[in-house]
Amino acid sequence: MFRSQIKHCRACGTAVAHRLPDDGDTRMRAICPSCHTVHYENPLNVVGTIPVWGPGGEQVLLCKRNIEPRYGKWTLPAGFMELGESTAEGAVRETHEEAGAQIELQGLFTLLNVVRVGQVHMYYRARLLSDRFDPGHETQEARLFHESEIPWDELAFRTVKETLELYFADRRTGIFPVHAGDIQ
Amino acid sequence: MFRSQIKHCRACGTAVAHRLPDDGDTRMRAICPSCHTVHYENPLNVVGTIPVWGPGGEQVLLCKRNIEPRYGKWTLPAGFMELGESTAEGAVRETHEEAGAQIELQGLFTLLNVVRVGQVHMYYRARLLSDRFDPGHETQEARLFHESEIPWDELAFRTVKETLELYFADRRTGIFPVHAGDIQ
Repeated sequence: MFRSQIKHCRACGTAVAHRLPDDGDTRMRAICPSCHTVHYENPLNVVGTIPVWGPGGEQVLLCKRNIEPRYGKWTLPAGFMELGESTAEGAVRETHEEAGAQIELQGLFTLLNVVRVGQVHMYYRARLLSDRFDPGHETQEARLFHESEIPWDELAFRTVKETLELYFADRRTGIFPVHAGDIQ
Repeated sequence: MFRSQIKHCRACGTAVAHRLPDDGDTRMRAICPSCHTVHYENPLNVVGTIPVWGPGGEQVLLCKRNIEPRYGKWTLPAGFMELGESTAEGAVRETHEEAGAQIELQGLFTLLNVVRVGQVHMYYRARLLSDRFDPGHETQEARLFHESEIPWDELAFRTVKETLELYFADRRTGIFPVHAGDIQ
């Protein structure tokens, strides 16, 4: 999802000016000189799951990407949160769409800011109800990995690597607190 | 922050069509018939703090709103997350802007989906470093409340009420896990 600069007003189509609004706002906004609409741009949420299988969740489901960016790299099922759904509902939807996996959703596990690209990534733990998958068109292959098999150098995103590292670390204690932090 | 319907392309100003994209996407999007830009709309994050003062955090800082919506109602300091900041940085910024309060940020405390309005509200716990406040133009008054003084019927938002209830409940145990859930 590439965000182009706002050049025209979404309400009336007039070319916008980039300036400070008159309401005390301290940030430059795209403002319509004709209908006076102020256009805001804000970070996007990416929601997904870490689906696990086997005794004590020893295996994790990863998807090999069939789309850009990071074509051919491995990821946890995740995607942009949509209007009309919660973070948890979005995470379940993406797991269905990308992996065709049946899951029981568990708790929120990571909330990772990726400030550079204006995104917040949230991963929920999930228990797989079956080890049969039916990946959608965005996924070349969906398969289970033991910790020793994780393709650490072939992961698609930093937040996926961080979430997997935290999961396998916490799995040693059996306690899975929420981890909130930033990816540089 | 009212979001008007997308009627014109932000890139070129042409009137958009609302239809399914050609890339397998299953949702209606605003698509430009001229430059083919697909316009997405996604939930927004609201970030804030629950700033506490006194032995064991017995008092909480609330702000009386000087702006719509909910003019004159009491809220925790919070506002829309901006590009270029993390959820934690946004929470600190809003606390400065709305209350002029000096804080030491602590852990993420609540993550509450408000699906009906397309928002995710996140509150961090924060320790006040002073009980002197300097509210900005969005706030009529900023003051501390003991639990028994909280104006429960005069709170601005459901997520504020939920966050305060969870805070005072957890304060009895001294353990503050992250609470993730939905507001209906």
